[in-house]
Amino acid sequence: MDRYKINFKDKGKIKRKSKVRKNIENLIDELEIKDAMTISFHHHFRNGDLIGSMVMDILDRKGIKNLTIFPSSLTSAHDDFGKYIKSGLIGKICTSGLRGKLGQDISSGLLEEPVVVRSHGGRARAIVQGDEKIDIAFLGAPHCDVQGNANGFEGNSPCGSLGYAKVDAKYADKVVVLTDDLTEEIAMPYSIPAYDVDYIVEVDSIGIKEKIMSGATRSVTNPKELLIAKKTAQVIEELNIVQNNFSFQTGSGGSSLAVAQFLRESMIRKDVKADFALGGITGHMVNLHEEGLVKKLLDVQSFDLSAVSSLKNNKNHFEIDASFYADISNPGNAVNRLDVVILSALEIDTKFNVNVITGSDGVFRGASGGHSDTAAGSKVCIVVAPLVRGRIATVKEKVLNIVTPGSTIDVLVTDHGVAVNPNRKDIIDKLKESKVKIIDINDLREMAEKITGKPEKINYTDKVVGLIEYRDGSIIDKVYQVK
Amino acid sequence: MDRYKINFKDKGKIKRKSKVRKNIENLIDELEIKDAMTISFHHHFRNGDLIGSMVMDILDRKGIKNLTIFPSSLTSAHDDFGKYIKSGLIGKICTSGLRGKLGQDISSGLLEEPVVVRSHGGRARAIVQGDEKIDIAFLGAPHCDVQGNANGFEGNSPCGSLGYAKVDAKYADKVVVLTDDLTEEIAMPYSIPAYDVDYIVEVDSIGIKEKIMSGATRSVTNPKELLIAKKTAQVIEELNIVQNNFSFQTGSGGSSLAVAQFLRESMIRKDVKADFALGGITGHMVNLHEEGLVKKLLDVQSFDLSAVSSLKNNKNHFEIDASFYADISNPGNAVNRLDVVILSALEIDTKFNVNVITGSDGVFRGASGGHSDTAAGSKVCIVVAPLVRGRIATVKEKVLNIVTPGSTIDVLVTDHGVAVNPNRKDIIDKLKESKVKIIDINDLREMAEKITGKPEKINYTDKVVGLIEYRDGSIIDKVYQVK
Repeated sequence: MDRYKINFKDKGKIKRKSKVRKNIENLIDELEIKDAMTISFHHHFRNGDLIGSMVMDILDRKGIKNLTIFPSSLTSAHDDFGKYIKSGLIGKICTSGLRGKLGQDISSGLLEEPVVVRSHGGRARAIVQGDEKIDIAFLGAPHCDVQGNANGFEGNSPCGSLGYAKVDAKYADKVVVLTDDLTEEIAMPYSIPAYDVDYIVEVDSIGIKEKIMSGATRSVTNPKELLIAKKTAQVIEELNIVQNNFSFQTGSGGSSLAVAQFLRESMIRKDVKADFALGGITGHMVNLHEEGLVKKLLDVQSFDLSAVSSLKNNKNHFEIDASFYADISNPGNAVNRLDVVILSALEIDTKFNVNVITGSDGVFRGASGGHSDTAAGSKVCIVVAPLVRGRIATVKEKVLNIVTPGSTIDVLVTDHGVAVNPNRKDIIDKLKESKVKIIDINDLREMAEKITGKPEKINYTDKVVGLIEYRDGSIIDKVYQVK
Repeated sequence: MDRYKINFKDKGKIKRKSKVRKNIENLIDELEIKDAMTISFHHHFRNGDLIGSMVMDILDRKGIKNLTIFPSSLTSAHDDFGKYIKSGLIGKICTSGLRGKLGQDISSGLLEEPVVVRSHGGRARAIVQGDEKIDIAFLGAPHCDVQGNANGFEGNSPCGSLGYAKVDAKYADKVVVLTDDLTEEIAMPYSIPAYDVDYIVEVDSIGIKEKIMSGATRSVTNPKELLIAKKTAQVIEELNIVQNNFSFQTGSGGSSLAVAQFLRESMIRKDVKADFALGGITGHMVNLHEEGLVKKLLDVQSFDLSAVSSLKNNKNHFEIDASFYADISNPGNAVNRLDVVILSALEIDTKFNVNVITGSDGVFRGASGGHSDTAAGSKVCIVVAPLVRGRIATVKEKVLNIVTPGSTIDVLVTDHGVAVNPNRKDIIDKLKESKVKIIDINDLREMAEKITGKPEKINYTDKVVGLIEYRDGSIIDKVYQVK
């Protein structure tokens, strides 16, 4: 006998449904956003972002309360978000960075719940592993087709890579793409695939592309920074890192950007090519790529318009998502391949712990970014920093807040000398036989203190205003309210 | 009081683990493959595939029993798989296609369990929605780096798109990449991302690239096929499908390939460009693309070496996965955007139902492919077929087996006339006012029968040897054992 049943029901041809909605106000009604939901947006436009305020304004008018906002980071474009805390719209914030007026507001205790600060890899991990659930992602996309395929490098306001947004699109319950360039033609290559998109709305403008280049990615003219860069290049040289198919990432600080220039000279001299450069991509990197010195650019975030245009035009300039970039739970993450990363620091202590989130006054003024991710994944992590900034020591007995554990930092290069983490005997041994003079980090701290004097103690209350989450999901530090 | 606990445990730098294993025999021991598991592989090498037999041979020697094999399709490279049925290694088969000796074996009842035949979109859907769980995917990749990023268009044996394999990589419990080109350099762009890959093994050869061009994609010289193609072009012309940014797919049969040539002339005459061509990509499509007539190629499977090299070199030749291509559960699937698809048929009946899986003797000799997917998704689906083949009618009262329901087929073009599905009044109305003469499909059947006579009845047993699953997961037909 035949136990198999034909159960086909004839539905004929597919009925096509449109995801395109007339305006965002109507869509928000359709979405039935409830109090205490989690919404996300991305910061690929950095200071030029228009989406965050656009969405929050409407939600505020609708009287929504107690939302968790979960942007990939916050910038000066969100400086006035304190008003949404006061109105009760924002109940919690998770972000990579926090600066300016909002940073001040948070540090002075405006928000009841502590802000959760995550690295770019940590945020991706939290989403991928389900620690955080995004109810609705509002994602600005410079170019989007009617089915929802979207990318960041075409259209009127290109921002380049949508590396952070890609993760939100993949995991959020509902995904709304906001675009100012909606097309009938299929948007290929896509950053965000149509199958991750539920709704599409056309708006006047999603961002100001000229503002994607923030202060953190300026060019380097400061002689102190150039000196540090030169010393760093020397360390890299002596450690023989510049070999064929090596890989590197330079952070967004001045010195670390200048290092790229020295790497260039070294590659030309040795006649070797880098396999890839990783992370936030700048025009400097694009130049190295177009010169043929760096074979591939792996771009999670385009730091300037030169990078945006390269992503569009250069076949070997690749967009990667935050999980591919730096997610510890992702067995193929790219930071785990890095030969060397050069990072900056607001503070570093004698245990090599690094603070990149709070200033010397204890107030939020930085971002976790890919700092702890690249430090842990790279073979060699070099932190570059001036020994003092103005009248403030960078190298200290104890950092105010730990973002990156000292166990993952290998070398500190300052304008007053190079210190190596004692747990990297291999590096110490190599540098001992070289022209690079190693100095004990405790001596650096003393030198700094001699210049600046003992730092004044900060008056904290016992209210926690921030939790710094390490990339594996554990809490590595707390940030307290400043009186 | 402070309810937040610091719970960071310092693990220092990341310890890198290698996924690379020395040889496949050892790996298979490590994998602890058990009886009745489901394993998969892909058919991107078509008749040149070496992976299927390589893996099955070892598993057979290890005495494994009752596996479900779940390849994206089976080709002549797997013609001798009957021996693994006899040995007890294979307990069940799920595939898109079944031909040659293995098709004969199955049709004559060698395998106890019925073969499950799925379309390319249906297979992706079954995986994505969890109807089928792949325990271990053995995926041949022409180029792979040490972390597992892999693609199909670099290396010594490129096969082009890995569109089917991408879905397996994403959803299988364990993913093994077999490669004959393992590199230290990062393999970007990747088809399969490292994070989907658990193990990598280097083998001597994964496939014979010259054999990826199968008989199904030959060039067209047959005058009957050219006549059908010309009539099809006329229908497309009269329906005014060739407009700026239209999209199309041509199947792999001779006539449907020839249609591409007529489309070219039409585009040049009208001075319009297609937005994209979809599906299995051939050198014909590449020519149209390089000529600037088709803006983008969306490639789930590269049908010849010209397509392989285009995928590598042409910026707007994109690899897509089977779910993006045709998965009904994927709201952004590409078949839903198609303006027109041209498909072939082994048989078509007066209700427009199409058989592309069994021959006129009832024996497996075809493949479901993207047939039912594109038929359902496209605005206009045209089936092209000669009225008779040799002494056998193509248009019949009732097809032996239904793969694609007639409700999704819009037009039938034969060398003896054009029939339109009565449910497409819009098409009938347009063609009535044109030079295309519409003929009733029942009349076509009569004409065919006059030429061939009544077909002899096939002697089936009551044993079910195949279940044809429609793209939504329902069973649309059963295939019976042939005496």
